[in-house]
Amino acid sequence: MGEFELLERIRRRLPPPGPEVRIGNGDDAAITVPPGATATSVDALLDGVHFRREWSNPAGIGRKALAVALSDLAAMGVRAGEAYVVLGVPSDLGEDACLELLDGMAALAAETGTTLAGGDVTRAPVLTLAVTVVGHAAQLDAFVTRAGARPGDALVLTGELGGAAAGLLLLEAAASGSPIARQLEPRPRLVEGRALAEAGATAMIDLSDGLGGDASHLAAASGIGLRIETAALPLEEGVAEVAAARGRDPLELAVNGGEDYELLAALPADRVEQAAATVGERGGTRLTRIGEVVAGEGVEIRLPGGGRLPPRGFDQLR
Amino acid sequence: MGEFELLERIRRRLPPPGPEVRIGNGDDAAITVPPGATATSVDALLDGVHFRREWSNPAGIGRKALAVALSDLAAMGVRAGEAYVVLGVPSDLGEDACLELLDGMAALAAETGTTLAGGDVTRAPVLTLAVTVVGHAAQLDAFVTRAGARPGDALVLTGELGGAAAGLLLLEAAASGSPIARQLEPRPRLVEGRALAEAGATAMIDLSDGLGGDASHLAAASGIGLRIETAALPLEEGVAEVAAARGRDPLELAVNGGEDYELLAALPADRVEQAAATVGERGGTRLTRIGEVVAGEGVEIRLPGGGRLPPRGFDQLR
Repeated sequence: MGEFELLERIRRRLPPPGPEVRIGNGDDAAITVPPGATATSVDALLDGVHFRREWSNPAGIGRKALAVALSDLAAMGVRAGEAYVVLGVPSDLGEDACLELLDGMAALAAETGTTLAGGDVTRAPVLTLAVTVVGHAAQLDAFVTRAGARPGDALVLTGELGGAAAGLLLLEAAASGSPIARQLEPRPRLVEGRALAEAGATAMIDLSDGLGGDASHLAAASGIGLRIETAALPLEEGVAEVAAARGRDPLELAVNGGEDYELLAALPADRVEQAAATVGERGGTRLTRIGEVVAGEGVEIRLPGGGRLPPRGFDQLR
Repeated sequence: MGEFELLERIRRRLPPPGPEVRIGNGDDAAITVPPGATATSVDALLDGVHFRREWSNPAGIGRKALAVALSDLAAMGVRAGEAYVVLGVPSDLGEDACLELLDGMAALAAETGTTLAGGDVTRAPVLTLAVTVVGHAAQLDAFVTRAGARPGDALVLTGELGGAAAGLLLLEAAASGSPIARQLEPRPRLVEGRALAEAGATAMIDLSDGLGGDASHLAAASGIGLRIETAALPLEEGVAEVAAARGRDPLELAVNGGEDYELLAALPADRVEQAAATVGERGGTRLTRIGEVVAGEGVEIRLPGGGRLPPRGFDQLR
């Protein structure tokens, strides 16, 4: 099957485009009329670096690639709009697997209101995905960047931590357990991100590199310090067991593991309750207050006994 | 060097952002306020598929990746806005080469008024680039799609053909000659695309797959037929010599070669002269009338003696 036929088969399987999209797949470019301001982010996932083909079915890989990209939009507090997908196909990946992969992506697109508006298909030595996502907001001030946190703000977290790292340990050991779903199927917190933005979040980031590293990014961008209480960190179910079985500290998985794709947000302390209620009403995950914003710089991760954990991030190129 | 340090070094080298960009590199997403409608396109380039590292310096590879993506915006007749870049770095490509590559891209970005507004850096088995470009126009009707050509329209072409295919032959033979520049440094015809749009182009496409294949796409999208006279096709300098030296037909290189990244446009016959004059005034390349739009379907490529060439395209996956 050639590129043109594959593209044509892909196009026929896509759900109908969203309201901003005037011309979708099939021309030189997709044409949209954004309703106000846009947020754009791009993420690449490669076999052997970000996933392994033997651990996932093609649909799961497609789903994860879009989820990871959408997580950045969740962290800006905006509505998902369009996605543009590069698919690099190795010689041992057949036509059916390509279409399955796109189906997995299209399913998450439909769930999140994202239009798959364009892309490029090429040969590649390993399965390669690059997803560019565009989110929309009516006004510029609807976006929540990393840079607005103020001393006195509360620090809240969506969902649970450590599951992705624990899942990775299980996958590497060819074992099974519930954290595997987190590693293979991260969920972009779009509902939570918008609710936090509406509740007055002053800064927000998604946890792709790990809580410690991403908290450091938020602190540096906002020009403030962060204090995180490890006693407050919500561990995903099964993480403690996986860590115990492998002689690892569950806190290490929660703080440095990466890929949990939860949101870390700063917001005025008197808004936390309202934010949690709004997230709950909309079917979102739980919100946990894990610390606070302080004057100064850097991230202090405090252990119950008075000790400190070093805030290390997960770094792709190391 | 880790991902974070490389990203920081990249950021410091980028030219200042354009007027649409409110928040650029460094947050979860770039934020823009598009002035009207946007055109978005994505292109991937991989070592061994779309270029070879031994044929180019890193700056040239970066330049080509952006040029190929911008060519799609040229074919919509819009102004270049932002670019988002995925850079997949193999283990044998050093930090300096990565920065050189970005410098080459940034140079073309500056020349074309494009803002490098975001990206992602990851490990990869071979040097991998994916570039998403966003173009802007005040109104929806300013875009020229592939779909508007009408019987009676003239068919015009920017610049010259066959150079990229001839350059590839030279590179494969490790020879030298002027068509090599076309293969290694395609020029996106942004000035020409906007001038053609303003002159009333009814349909437009850029020649990435080859004149025959891309003309077929335009004909199918517009629901009309195209008649192209090979006698009118402008061959790039040196193409005839390269073809002769290798026992190839220069017309084959011009019609089926691909990667020339010239624009093929349909427009009312009485507008051709004005369009050519406008392109010339703005320092663009020459415009050649190479045929016409006819009722019916398909592409007829007519030889001077009365014969026909089959319109074949270049297909990435074959």
